[in-house]
Amino acid sequence: MTPPAKKIAVCPGSYDPITNGHLDVISRAAGLFDEVIVAIVNNSVRKSRTLFSLEERTAFIERATADLGLQNVRPLPFNTLIVDFARQVGAQTIVKGLRAISDFEYEFEMNQLNRRQAPEIESFYLMASPQYSFLSSSGVKELATFNGNIDGLVPEHVKARLLEELSRG
Amino acid sequence: MTPPAKKIAVCPGSYDPITNGHLDVISRAAGLFDEVIVAIVNNSVRKSRTLFSLEERTAFIERATADLGLQNVRPLPFNTLIVDFARQVGAQTIVKGLRAISDFEYEFEMNQLNRRQAPEIESFYLMASPQYSFLSSSGVKELATFNGNIDGLVPEHVKARLLEELSRG
Amino acid sequence: MTPPAKKIAVCPGSYDPITNGHLDVISRAAGLFDEVIVAIVNNSVRKSRTLFSLEERTAFIERATADLGLQNVRPLPFNTLIVDFARQVGAQTIVKGLRAISDFEYEFEMNQLNRRQAPEIESFYLMASPQYSFLSSSGVKELATFNGNIDGLVPEHVKARLLEELSRG
Amino acid sequence: MTPPAKKIAVCPGSYDPITNGHLDVISRAAGLFDEVIVAIVNNSVRKSRTLFSLEERTAFIERATADLGLQNVRPLPFNTLIVDFARQVGAQTIVKGLRAISDFEYEFEMNQLNRRQAPEIESFYLMASPQYSFLSSSGVKELATFNGNIDGLVPEHVKARLLEELSRG
Amino acid sequence: MTPPAKKIAVCPGSYDPITNGHLDVISRAAGLFDEVIVAIVNNSVRKSRTLFSLEERTAFIERATADLGLQNVRPLPFNTLIVDFARQVGAQTIVKGLRAISDFEYEFEMNQLNRRQAPEIESFYLMASPQYSFLSSSGVKELATFNGNIDGLVPEHVKARLLEELSRG
Amino acid sequence: MTPPAKKIAVCPGSYDPITNGHLDVISRAAGLFDEVIVAIVNNSVRKSRTLFSLEERTAFIERATADLGLQNVRPLPFNTLIVDFARQVGAQTIVKGLRAISDFEYEFEMNQLNRRQAPEIESFYLMASPQYSFLSSSGVKELATFNGNIDGLVPEHVKARLLEELSRG
Repeated sequence: MTPPAKKIAVCPGSYDPITNGHLDVISRAAGLFDEVIVAIVNNSVRKSRTLFSLEERTAFIERATADLGLQNVRPLPFNTLIVDFARQVGAQTIVKGLRAISDFEYEFEMNQLNRRQAPEIESFYLMASPQYSFLSSSGVKELATFNGNIDGLVPEHVKARLLEELSRG
Repeated sequence: MTPPAKKIAVCPGSYDPITNGHLDVISRAAGLFDEVIVAIVNNSVRKSRTLFSLEERTAFIERATADLGLQNVRPLPFNTLIVDFARQVGAQTIVKGLRAISDFEYEFEMNQLNRRQAPEIESFYLMASPQYSFLSSSGVKELATFNGNIDGLVPEHVKARLLEELSRG
Repeated sequence: MTPPAKKIAVCPGSYDPITNGHLDVISRAAGLFDEVIVAIVNNSVRKSRTLFSLEERTAFIERATADLGLQNVRPLPFNTLIVDFARQVGAQTIVKGLRAISDFEYEFEMNQLNRRQAPEIESFYLMASPQYSFLSSSGVKELATFNGNIDGLVPEHVKARLLEELSRG
Repeated sequence: MTPPAKKIAVCPGSYDPITNGHLDVISRAAGLFDEVIVAIVNNSVRKSRTLFSLEERTAFIERATADLGLQNVRPLPFNTLIVDFARQVGAQTIVKGLRAISDFEYEFEMNQLNRRQAPEIESFYLMASPQYSFLSSSGVKELATFNGNIDGLVPEHVKARLLEELSRG
Repeated sequence: MTPPAKKIAVCPGSYDPITNGHLDVISRAAGLFDEVIVAIVNNSVRKSRTLFSLEERTAFIERATADLGLQNVRPLPFNTLIVDFARQVGAQTIVKGLRAISDFEYEFEMNQLNRRQAPEIESFYLMASPQYSFLSSSGVKELATFNGNIDGLVPEHVKARLLEELSRG
Repeated sequence: MTPPAKKIAVCPGSYDPITNGHLDVISRAAGLFDEVIVAIVNNSVRKSRTLFSLEERTAFIERATADLGLQNVRPLPFNTLIVDFARQVGAQTIVKGLRAISDFEYEFEMNQLNRRQAPEIESFYLMASPQYSFLSSSGVKELATFNGNIDGLVPEHVKARLLEELSRG
């Protein structure tokens, strides 16, 4: 087995919306992999509803990664198993962040399921930076709903839209 | 920031001795990285004692990775902080396996300490394969001491030496 | 920084209904703090539904704390972030009980979010008493629904109302 | 206290549908207990919806345990507290599998609640086999929905019905 | 596979000394199994030292189980792998108590190792009673060393010997 | 039960040496309690050895808390159970920091033991600040031994002494 010449990773998530914690993981992956594809769950297929449309979630990521000067990163939607999507875009790896024990347990299970489906796709995990270890999209939405301060938790352009959608007078 | 042309990972451990769980992590890392350096703790510097000498632990790894046909893997001893060793050999990443919650907690702490020391060295984690999730060098040594069956837990050449050292008539 | 002359704590929760586990935490907090405000989530603002109205949940707490002779405890509703409510009532601290690892993880995240919002509000945690470490409002409601024995899990006046609402002939 | 002459265990669950992980626990219990009753939650009483009807879930279990030659196993529905059901069928014990920390925490709480209800009913736990430690009914349904490979995760006759119900073109 | 006519369990431990938490697990096991063998680690084989000799640890258990009227329980020393000991005494199962997450993780690993050695020996776990969930032999010894109150944590005859050995003026 | 007029807390530990994580917990406690006593384990009584003498550990704390302007904090040694020490100095509470799940489990057990000994002494817990969640005295000593950078992990005067004791040319 020879390592692939061009190393491509997918970073899957709902990104509803992208947070600075997501961007931390994505930019750290972009420091190693030749290409990083931010794989956005197309929730129209699943039952769950999102606050922002697939188009807007994609645009948030495009702008945020451009602002950070990450040239080897691009967002793409997916509505299959993540391993099938990885195969389709030629990625050899899935990269995810781990914040807490509960993340670890969930990812451990997903890892076994994914490796059964596609043994050639490997998952690598990054530990969340401490300043983002408490951060989730749903937490940020809850904060915004109750007029909490979300500075530094999401990119500025995302913050503006969140307040528009959720903040109460 | 541009991703490095040649991607090098270090896999640190005591490897006293190497188990099939270690080999699983190393070979999965070798499927992605251009070069994998198995970094063996030189315990002479630390207080802890090992069953096998640094030389023998190194030889075990050389043979086991050769038997698996892993041509981009080589063992090296280290007696510094792992991040300093990574810098010294030109590695950009540390790769470790996670078996359990207790591994996760320990690695989470080490991760923060290591990133403070060397922010440019990133650590990636692999989830242990289920058949090796219970496996540790100390567990194998305990089994061998009590005449337990260690087939399939360590390479054959390691097994022979373990039984020689530990098995009781 | 000088410690506050009058020390006030808030104990937030849904209290749908209050259990003996809640009362254990509240009375232990009341043994230290000069005043304890039981902060009841006003769920009308959020999407989630409660079994008992805000008024009834408040009345349950008033009677239960009076029965225990806790004179420095009073319930109040809130529909803002808990830290904003704490500021508003002049409390310097939030007090919560920890029953299990999953509580710990959730509270760890909330703690970071809350300290970002209001660094001057500190959260202190109490470990649940062993006899209540398994107890939750939802568990009690489930038990009552299936005609289980809820003696000793909630105050007597709460028990009567629970059976009225949930018990099946 | 004398141990019971005939030892009977109940294995409760939703079994929507039964997986090979469930069957692993059931058959291991059947190796010790004189009789094992697979207790199927009758969800019509509760709010939650199931993919398969009680009748079909029961039939799946009957066929799967017959195929394994387990002669001391039979499925029965229940819509009471599990301890009340155990009493009713003359079982002295509840047997459940533990896959992960989150299972452990949940079961720890249930255990205390159950022992308060019925101190004479004891719960015994089995550790999931590693190859099934990631496996749940909901995970299998998710996989089937996205055309994932579910070979080896559920019995063949269950697999056929799952694909019929969930698989997309 | 037919369930065994006479069901025998082993409860392994160091029992240095036996606590009321151990006795809780042993007596609950004795309520189900036809015979329970308390398997005492013979530490002379291992490096670790015990406070009480094997003879005294055995005598403590004999008296404590007799005082509880447990007629189907008897202590025996072992210095092999626990599964080999189980086979030797004709036991089909190992029974252990789980107090906490760290117990769970350790036992999960041991479970896999043991099942590889002896697939026909099954391990069943009991959840510790809440009033003993914090209790360990080493904690009791620490308490006794610092003149703490150990009433209710160990049998009376064990308490007397502990204070003799450890208590300071 | 009336809350105490003067609220006193003890913060127990080995403090070998004090870290900035310890100081974070101590100063947060000092923001609420009227007096905070830093209770230093006098290890001469126990078997464990410390790097720094009791006198030096005390002096480190005195200087570090003075540098932070904490006027209601003072260090004292103890060689009894912590609850006995708390009683002796008139403290009603023990305050400790929680960094991780493993801390939580250990403290949960200690909490039950302590409350049995002295029900009137209550323990309150603070969540570690994220930037210190990975920090321990032993981790800092390990770093210093291998010439790692310990800036920002311990007070400057402690750092100087650590490098003197541990750093290798």
